[in-house]
Amino acid sequence: MVEYMVNKVLKYIVENRMLLPNDKVIVGVSGGADSVCLLNILLEVKKTIPITLYVVHIEHGIRGIESEKDAEFVEKMALQYKLVFRRFSYDVATEAKKNGLGTEEMGRIIRYQAFENVRKEFDCNKIAVAHNKNDNAETMLFNLFRGSGLKGLSGILPVRFNIIRPLLCIERKEIETWLAEHNIAYRTDQTNFEEDYTRNRLRLNVLPYVQKNINKQALAHIDQASRIIYETWEYLEEETDKVYSKCVLRKDENMVIRIPEFIHVSDVIKKNIIRKCLESYQKGLKDITNKHIDCILTLVNNHTGKSIHLPNTLQASRGYNEIIIGFKSKALLLEKEEILIQAPGSYLFMGYKFEFSLEQYEKNQIIPENIYTKWFDYDKIGNDLRLRTKEAGDYLVVNSCGGTKKLKSYFIDEKIEKEKRDSIPLLCDNNHIIWAVGYRISEKYKISLDTKKVLKVQVNGGKE
Amino acid sequence: MVEYMVNKVLKYIVENRMLLPNDKVIVGVSGGADSVCLLNILLEVKKTIPITLYVVHIEHGIRGIESEKDAEFVEKMALQYKLVFRRFSYDVATEAKKNGLGTEEMGRIIRYQAFENVRKEFDCNKIAVAHNKNDNAETMLFNLFRGSGLKGLSGILPVRFNIIRPLLCIERKEIETWLAEHNIAYRTDQTNFEEDYTRNRLRLNVLPYVQKNINKQALAHIDQASRIIYETWEYLEEETDKVYSKCVLRKDENMVIRIPEFIHVSDVIKKNIIRKCLESYQKGLKDITNKHIDCILTLVNNHTGKSIHLPNTLQASRGYNEIIIGFKSKALLLEKEEILIQAPGSYLFMGYKFEFSLEQYEKNQIIPENIYTKWFDYDKIGNDLRLRTKEAGDYLVVNSCGGTKKLKSYFIDEKIEKEKRDSIPLLCDNNHIIWAVGYRISEKYKISLDTKKVLKVQVNGGKE
Repeated sequence: MVEYMVNKVLKYIVENRMLLPNDKVIVGVSGGADSVCLLNILLEVKKTIPITLYVVHIEHGIRGIESEKDAEFVEKMALQYKLVFRRFSYDVATEAKKNGLGTEEMGRIIRYQAFENVRKEFDCNKIAVAHNKNDNAETMLFNLFRGSGLKGLSGILPVRFNIIRPLLCIERKEIETWLAEHNIAYRTDQTNFEEDYTRNRLRLNVLPYVQKNINKQALAHIDQASRIIYETWEYLEEETDKVYSKCVLRKDENMVIRIPEFIHVSDVIKKNIIRKCLESYQKGLKDITNKHIDCILTLVNNHTGKSIHLPNTLQASRGYNEIIIGFKSKALLLEKEEILIQAPGSYLFMGYKFEFSLEQYEKNQIIPENIYTKWFDYDKIGNDLRLRTKEAGDYLVVNSCGGTKKLKSYFIDEKIEKEKRDSIPLLCDNNHIIWAVGYRISEKYKISLDTKKVLKVQVNGGKE
Repeated sequence: MVEYMVNKVLKYIVENRMLLPNDKVIVGVSGGADSVCLLNILLEVKKTIPITLYVVHIEHGIRGIESEKDAEFVEKMALQYKLVFRRFSYDVATEAKKNGLGTEEMGRIIRYQAFENVRKEFDCNKIAVAHNKNDNAETMLFNLFRGSGLKGLSGILPVRFNIIRPLLCIERKEIETWLAEHNIAYRTDQTNFEEDYTRNRLRLNVLPYVQKNINKQALAHIDQASRIIYETWEYLEEETDKVYSKCVLRKDENMVIRIPEFIHVSDVIKKNIIRKCLESYQKGLKDITNKHIDCILTLVNNHTGKSIHLPNTLQASRGYNEIIIGFKSKALLLEKEEILIQAPGSYLFMGYKFEFSLEQYEKNQIIPENIYTKWFDYDKIGNDLRLRTKEAGDYLVVNSCGGTKKLKSYFIDEKIEKEKRDSIPLLCDNNHIIWAVGYRISEKYKISLDTKKVLKVQVNGGKE
C-alpha cells in the first residue's frame, strides 16, 4: 500500500496545484523535524512528479555552536541524497537590531532573501517551506489575539506566489511519528522550547491547555476555521474587485470613489473598497484602522464639502458625487478644523493622534509631568469638548484663584510668533482653553483632591 | 456631563435600534454584577427613552441557600425601584438530567421559557439580557475551539428577535468599576469561580493568560474579530439568499438545485446554498459536516446518476441538470452501494458512520473486544479497501493457518436469513472480507506480534 503520509501530502500538492513535472524546487531545511520531514517526503513525491530539489540552509547564528552543528547535519543529509546544497550565515540578532525589527521578523526576511539568491543561481521556480497544521493554527490564534481582519485570521496559505507549503495538511505530532517510524534523524531546536517568543507561549502553554481542557480537537478546529475564513476572504476580494474597477479611478493626484456606482453594494464591500483605495494610494495600510474606514464610510451619507483627517496627512472628502482620497494640500492643512470629542476615543487632528481615556482617580495618585500626556478633572468639563485652533474670545485660567487670561495675551507673553499660532492644537470647553498642546493647561481642570474621574489625553503616544 | 457608561450604552442602544419609546422591556436579573448593572443603566436610559421595565429572576436551585438569598436580593431591588417583579424556581440539574442536556444548556432554555411567560402576562415586546464584551469574546473562542462555521465565530448578537443585549459594548471590568463607583451592591455567583464548566476554564485560565502574556488588548481584539466575521457572515447570507431563490425549488418530496442557475456562482455561495437546502429539508443541520457539503459540491462536476449517501438516510444525486436532495426511498436503500476507502477518514455507508483511523501498534498493547470497533493489521491490506455489500466470490480466512471459507457458507452456517444478507455492510480487500460488520473479522488481518501500523475502524462511534 502506498504510504499514508506521502499519499496525503501528494494529494494536498495536487489539490493545491503546488508542483508540476520538471519544477525546480528550493527546499528550506533548518534540520528540525518539520523541514527534515519535508525534504524526505518531497524525495518520495519526486517518484510520482519528476522535480529537482535544491537544499538551502540558513544559519541564524543565534544558537552558537548548535547552529554550526545544524548546518553540518543538513549538508550531510543533502550530500547523502546527492542534492545541491547551499548554506547562508547571518547574524540575525545584529541585523534585527540594525533594522529595528524583531528577531523572528528579521529571520523571516533573511530567509526569503537567501531563497531568492539560490532561485536566481539555478533558475528555480518554486520554494518549499515546512509549515504544518500547528503553525497554521498558531498563526491564526496569534493574529486573533493581537488584532486582525479576515486576512490575518486566514492563517498561512498553502501557496503564495512561488512559495509552497506541502506540510500544511499535517500535524506536528504526525511528522514526529513518521520520522520515528522511518528512523530519520533530525536536530532539536532548543529555541522552540524556550518561552522567548510570544508565539512560543501560544505553542507551549495556550494550545496544549486548550487541547487538554477545552477540546481535544481544538487544533483541527482552528485549522478548519482558518480555511473557512480564507475561502470567505477570497470571495470578498473577488466581489470587491468587481465593484472596485467600476467605481474607483485616479484623478489628478487623488483617488476618487464614484458614489453612484458605490452606493448600492453592501457595507462590507464598501469598506473593502475604501481599504483597497487607501492601500493602493499610500502603498499599504500603515496606521489605518477599522475606525478610519468606518469614518470614511459615513461620508457617503454626508453633505458635500465635509472631510475627514487621516494619519500620514491623508484626507478623505465628500464631493458632490464622489469621495476623494488624497494627501492634504498645504492649503487644506491650514484650513480650519474642528472635532467634537467623546471620550474615550482616538482622534486625528492636524496630523497628531489624540487618545482620550477615562480613569478612576485614586487619592494621592501621583500625576506625572509630561508635555504630551495630560490629566484633567473630567467632571469639570462641560458638554462641548472640542479640538480646534484659536478663535476670538478664547481664554485660560492661569492661577488657582480662577484668574483668567486671554489666549491672545498668553501667546504674546510667551512670544509665540503670529504665523505659528494657528498651528497650535487646542483642547477646548467652549471658549475655555483646557490645553494649548505643547504649551500649558488651564488651572481650572487640574486634578485636585476632589477629583473622581480623570480624563487622560495623550498626543502621538505621549512621546516627548 | 452625562455619565460616560450610560452614554456609551445609550449610543449602542440607538446604533443597534434596541429600544423605542413605550417599549415594555423584561430585564433578566440574576443578582450578579452584570444584570444588576444592566437594570441600573436601563433605569438611567429610561430618562431619555421612555420605557417600562419588568424584573424577572430565575432561581436555578443549583446554589442552595445562596439561590434563595439571590432571589430575595433581586426582589428587594425591584421593590426599591417600584418595578414589577416575577420569580421563577426550577431545579435545573434535575431538568437537565431528565432532558439529557448540560446544565448550562438547560438553564438557558428554562430562562427563555420564563421570559416568555412574563412577556405574555404583561404584553412585553423586548427582553434585555446582560451579556457583556467578555461573554462575547469567550463565546467566540469557545466556538473556535470546539469547531464552528462563520456563524458561531460571530459570537453573541446585540439583537436577536426580541432579545436585546445593551451591555455587549462594555467589558466586565468596566461594569465592576461602575458598580463600585455608584455603591451599587450585587451578589457574587460562586459558580463563576469554580472550574466546573469548560467555559469557565476559558474565562478563568485561558483569557487571563493570553491578556497577560500575549496581548493586553486580546479581549477587545477577539471582540472586534467576531464583529468583522458577523458582518461578513451577514453579507454571505444575503448573497446566498439572492441565488437560492433562483436555483432551489421543491419537487415532489425532494429539494432540487438547478445547475444552470447555480454553476456560475462562487464555491462559497454554492456551499452555503447546499447547506441551506439540507437545513430546510431536515429542519436543521444534524450530523451534517463540511465534508458532506464538499462531497455534494463535487456532484456538480460529476456524471448524471451518481449519488452520495448522507447521515439520517439523506441522499444527494446528480440529475441531468440538477442536484436532488431527499430521503432515500426504500428502493434506493437496497440499491448496490460501494465506497473506496482511504484511511484516515469518515464515510457514510448504508446509514452507518464508519470512522477509519491509523495508529502506531505498541508491542503488548491490549486490543479490546468490541463488536463495533475493530483493529486490523494495516500493512496486510492491499490497495483496494472498500465498503460494499456481498458479491459472488467473497471469502474469509477463518483460522490462523489461513484456511478460507466462502462468505455464503459462513452466512448459512450462522443461520443469517437470505433477506438480511444484503443489508450487512462488508469491509473488503477485493473479494477477501476483512470484516462482516456485526459478525466477524477475517483471521488474516488480525493484529499480531509483527504488526506495525493499526487500522482502527469504528461504526457509529463504537457504541454497542
